[in-house]
Amino acid sequence: MVDIATRVWNHKWRIDPIVRSLIDTDFYKLLMCQSVFRNKPDTQVTFSLINRTASVPLAKLIDEGELREQLDHVRSLSLTRGESTWLRGNTFYGKRSMFRPDFMEWFENLRLPPYELERVGDQYELTFEGSWPEVMLWEIPALAILMELRGRAVLNDMGKFELQVMYARAMTKLWEKVEHLRQIPDLRIADFGTRRRHSFLWQDWCVQAMLEGLGNNFIGTSNCLIAKNRDLEAIGTNAHELPMVYAALAEDDAALAHAPYNVLADWHEEHDGNLRIILPDTYGTEGFLKRAPDWLAGWTGIRIDSGDPATGAETAIKWWKDRGEDPTKKLVIFSDGLDEQKIVELHRQFQGRVRASFGWGTLLTNDFRGLAPNDGLAPFSLVCKAISANGRPTVKLSDNPNKAMGPAEEIARYKRVFGVGEQTRMDVVV
Amino acid sequence: MVDIATRVWNHKWRIDPIVRSLIDTDFYKLLMCQSVFRNKPDTQVTFSLINRTASVPLAKLIDEGELREQLDHVRSLSLTRGESTWLRGNTFYGKRSMFRPDFMEWFENLRLPPYELERVGDQYELTFEGSWPEVMLWEIPALAILMELRGRAVLNDMGKFELQVMYARAMTKLWEKVEHLRQIPDLRIADFGTRRRHSFLWQDWCVQAMLEGLGNNFIGTSNCLIAKNRDLEAIGTNAHELPMVYAALAEDDAALAHAPYNVLADWHEEHDGNLRIILPDTYGTEGFLKRAPDWLAGWTGIRIDSGDPATGAETAIKWWKDRGEDPTKKLVIFSDGLDEQKIVELHRQFQGRVRASFGWGTLLTNDFRGLAPNDGLAPFSLVCKAISANGRPTVKLSDNPNKAMGPAEEIARYKRVFGVGEQTRMDVVV
Repeated sequence: MVDIATRVWNHKWRIDPIVRSLIDTDFYKLLMCQSVFRNKPDTQVTFSLINRTASVPLAKLIDEGELREQLDHVRSLSLTRGESTWLRGNTFYGKRSMFRPDFMEWFENLRLPPYELERVGDQYELTFEGSWPEVMLWEIPALAILMELRGRAVLNDMGKFELQVMYARAMTKLWEKVEHLRQIPDLRIADFGTRRRHSFLWQDWCVQAMLEGLGNNFIGTSNCLIAKNRDLEAIGTNAHELPMVYAALAEDDAALAHAPYNVLADWHEEHDGNLRIILPDTYGTEGFLKRAPDWLAGWTGIRIDSGDPATGAETAIKWWKDRGEDPTKKLVIFSDGLDEQKIVELHRQFQGRVRASFGWGTLLTNDFRGLAPNDGLAPFSLVCKAISANGRPTVKLSDNPNKAMGPAEEIARYKRVFGVGEQTRMDVVV
Repeated sequence: MVDIATRVWNHKWRIDPIVRSLIDTDFYKLLMCQSVFRNKPDTQVTFSLINRTASVPLAKLIDEGELREQLDHVRSLSLTRGESTWLRGNTFYGKRSMFRPDFMEWFENLRLPPYELERVGDQYELTFEGSWPEVMLWEIPALAILMELRGRAVLNDMGKFELQVMYARAMTKLWEKVEHLRQIPDLRIADFGTRRRHSFLWQDWCVQAMLEGLGNNFIGTSNCLIAKNRDLEAIGTNAHELPMVYAALAEDDAALAHAPYNVLADWHEEHDGNLRIILPDTYGTEGFLKRAPDWLAGWTGIRIDSGDPATGAETAIKWWKDRGEDPTKKLVIFSDGLDEQKIVELHRQFQGRVRASFGWGTLLTNDFRGLAPNDGLAPFSLVCKAISANGRPTVKLSDNPNKAMGPAEEIARYKRVFGVGEQTRMDVVV
């Protein structure tokens, strides 16, 4: 049944906003934001968009005016009462009042700060400058907007029937992955696909498919809005931006060497249980674990976000054993470049040896490979990162040099300080 | 675009549940429930369905098995986490934590108690017995189920195109009412139509139409689920069941005469501001106000729910003046049998004399008069009331003898105790 009024109404929209809520973002952003708000509120940072896939000419595909309209729309958003009520009142990881009243009051009054946008060749330079707790909240919406505008540019050239078939195929494809994954009885998997999703509605559909197909093995979503709307667990802990900024703020090499542990010391004070997850790879997993204080071995688990995931997990298992911990009680969260085949393999490899868990991102919420003309919707690697803090450049090494970032001389200094030697290069698909 | 999977899925439903949430109910039920939970938790009550429109043969229209399935479905419901979070965390009438932890804990563990259903001639006898705070929560879902099953019985005989046209006409009809009401710049109106709605989806559509057409003049809905989903104010205060049960519990005539004021004394202790609304008509408005203690004149307003509404409002205005109160500061809530023409008239008549406000019920959410064959969807008057408390019959007189209920000798006794003389009979449409 065609609803004529709805169709006409749809045609009257000035824009179709991509991000319509400040909680249409990853849960860990909010956890980190509260931590930053508490521990480093006055830090001045710059975040910048980085397209690691130069072959995707974003500025040729996306109209600058449309991009500005979408970014401006995000700046017009503020927390709604229902969103605030949910954040204040919901239980997260079994804990009530995760977000403290002073943080919530600040958040309720927040509008996102200005952005700077410039076209340079076929790419956009998009940067955000200001106080850390405000600027950091741009990362996810900025990425979601660019991903979806690139998608819309491709969809614009497709006819109605083509579109219908394309989505039918994409749904079929995802459902086949889900059917594959439901063979694993004790799987634990979450949606981590907000930042590089095809669109909000598509992500929401993917979440429904996971829920429908995997039941309780689907443990939740990183997307707060979807978690709220669908009464799911909001999932996430912390990310590289914390050690990157803490490290940039270090006054000398000795302070630098200690910075990543300071992050986790602050986190330790605030959180327990499943929120105590180590992200060890910012400046090389190997050295990080070797020099880690003993209390860190008592944490609940580790998240493997770069390098070969099996190697990373083996390194963690060995480290726990060395520190007298029982790896079978520990959580290993795989979250880098997963697809269903990789998930099945990793699960098989580590079954019974650790408690494995999976944060499935881009290839859950944006796998349109082979479905659009000229493979125009193939995934690409777009990030938005802190590039400086209080005027000093940030550095990330990671366990894959293709994911490293920062000025060359600073990378060299960090490698020296953190004792990072030879690393294996791996293609970054997403 | 037809979604084949959805259509097939729809055909697989065993039942289409009419009430899907324990907060798909009127807000005042929850306020009263908390008050009862606090003040009279051990009272044993019986609630019973009463069809005041004998010409609508409910047992001929509605299949007993389907009715039982719907009632059983309500018994399977419990408060979801999101619902509990909203009740615990939301602000109601500007107040946070309206619902206290002990009440919420009880509510979170609640399942509705059993029902008794029997067919007697062309009507159903449907009764609920047990502790007051549990049984009282049956009223709204029971009414909504019977209203909607009656509607479905009629819709079952209509074809697809007929249905499409019928809903298009119903929407047009409501939108015309809304356009009429938007002429009143300072209107204050709320949706009170849960219990006798056409269906949940239709009520939800009506709320959207009010919101769209009236903006801030639409002040909210009595339906908690819709208020939650649409981030609206949940509206409501208290109802006749409180004085009816308090009165039934009175040990003698002196205690009986005082019972309605005890209700409001308990309420006074708990609530302030816009929740201090007198409902004076249970045993006759005239006498109730005459004998009211002075502190009651300080309350925010009055709700007129039976008799001629203009007369009721005039009575209240006179009473406030007699007690030295300024009526222009007082709220008069009209909530009985309203339609848009009546609303316009009442607004005009009391403009500037009191702060008028309207609780629009059946003819907002279930006005399908003239739209179905044989006028099969015309509104009728169905209620679900407390008929006894701790084994004693309850009595309601109201300002319209056609709304009176209770055993004849008890009605006579109440009329004597409350000094109720001649009353004007008025047709009860809804």
